[in-house]
Amino acid sequence: MERPYTYINIAMTADGKIDTFERKGSAISSQRDRDRVDKLRAESDAVLVGGLTLLDEDPKLTVKSDALRAERVARGLEPNPVKVGVVTIADLKPDSNFLRAGPAKVVIFTTDQTSNDQLAFLGSRGVEVFVHQEHRVDLIKMMETLKEIGIQRLMVEGGGTLNFELLKLGLVDEITAYIAPMIFGGANSPTMADSLGVPRDAAIPLKLIDVEKWDDGGVVLRYKLNSSSRKYIGTM
Amino acid sequence: MERPYTYINIAMTADGKIDTFERKGSAISSQRDRDRVDKLRAESDAVLVGGLTLLDEDPKLTVKSDALRAERVARGLEPNPVKVGVVTIADLKPDSNFLRAGPAKVVIFTTDQTSNDQLAFLGSRGVEVFVHQEHRVDLIKMMETLKEIGIQRLMVEGGGTLNFELLKLGLVDEITAYIAPMIFGGANSPTMADSLGVPRDAAIPLKLIDVEKWDDGGVVLRYKLNSSSRKYIGTM
Repeated sequence: MERPYTYINIAMTADGKIDTFERKGSAISSQRDRDRVDKLRAESDAVLVGGLTLLDEDPKLTVKSDALRAERVARGLEPNPVKVGVVTIADLKPDSNFLRAGPAKVVIFTTDQTSNDQLAFLGSRGVEVFVHQEHRVDLIKMMETLKEIGIQRLMVEGGGTLNFELLKLGLVDEITAYIAPMIFGGANSPTMADSLGVPRDAAIPLKLIDVEKWDDGGVVLRYKLNSSSRKYIGTM
Repeated sequence: MERPYTYINIAMTADGKIDTFERKGSAISSQRDRDRVDKLRAESDAVLVGGLTLLDEDPKLTVKSDALRAERVARGLEPNPVKVGVVTIADLKPDSNFLRAGPAKVVIFTTDQTSNDQLAFLGSRGVEVFVHQEHRVDLIKMMETLKEIGIQRLMVEGGGTLNFELLKLGLVDEITAYIAPMIFGGANSPTMADSLGVPRDAAIPLKLIDVEKWDDGGVVLRYKLNSSSRKYIGTM
């Protein structure tokens, strides 16, 4: 299949949490890490988030730095990457940051469980909507569509359910993790890869590429995946 | 309070899991990491595990290397560190690895929910048992007792519930984490610090001491805690 080069970026605590048990979108990154993420975003053609992140955290997903947006424009690009949401029921509010912050093209992959009224609303806001006639969005088909509409470099910004599903399907090329010097704890706190998980013999192997130790106490790990060698490709 | 110098050691995946959702005690460490853990164990006066780990995984907790055991004996020590279990209901089987593998002194902290028959059985096996008249073992009191019986250096080998409770109570001085190059995923897979977790403003701060990048794809992170500056000390 043809798909974008896909990288997951996350910030997590030393105990592997991407938020507290309260799931309020806790700040984990340092300023230096926020700058790193902004740069990564500016280098992407599109930024992808899953439904829980989209509806609960309602991220803006725009490039924060004026200089980085200007650089994109100088290269003949839009100021911000395309925002892509994948959400079973696309029940977005009219004042959603995801829809409003920009200027940015917005693409949503959803299912026929989204109401016609909501689809009409999204259309009226200029959102490009792809409706899959299935129980859940078909992530492989989504990747093919993203490639077809010109997305070469895709940054995945969470959450843990989408990350895991993409990893399990072999749709990820790279993971960058910033590990913050703190502990959240919590058996129910979200992690980088949630959902069902795999048994031991189906563990998804990574190749360690780079380790950085930062003065702010953070550590940045970069891994590559050999997405053609997935042992465990199945449906959720 | 007087307590042992206490260090948590764990092996986790890049997504922060210490086992798969199946909780069968999955191997995560590389050979080099197993050697590192064996050395750390040999340098400890005692090794501590929580009830779930003790009853589900039934670890031996002995020093594997003949050379390291011989070194301990040459220093006038027992071949193996004291094994310490903390378990609300100490329902150990007679053929338990934890009780049998040795030679090693065994200490158990439990509550009055453990039956008298079980207490008598543990006594007959030479186990030193401390019974707390409470709903759960009082970990602060446990630490004081460990110090009193001569434990200066205490290694905590899991699991995530015990780790979190110790961290939250400010009873930990150091964490060493080996991060294996793999993903398990799973919202219900155990992590280094589980239990309830803390809200964002009560996050437990760490001080990054050391980062090692290993040829086997592993990364070893070492953190210190400033256990006197805990913001959030409370009961579970």
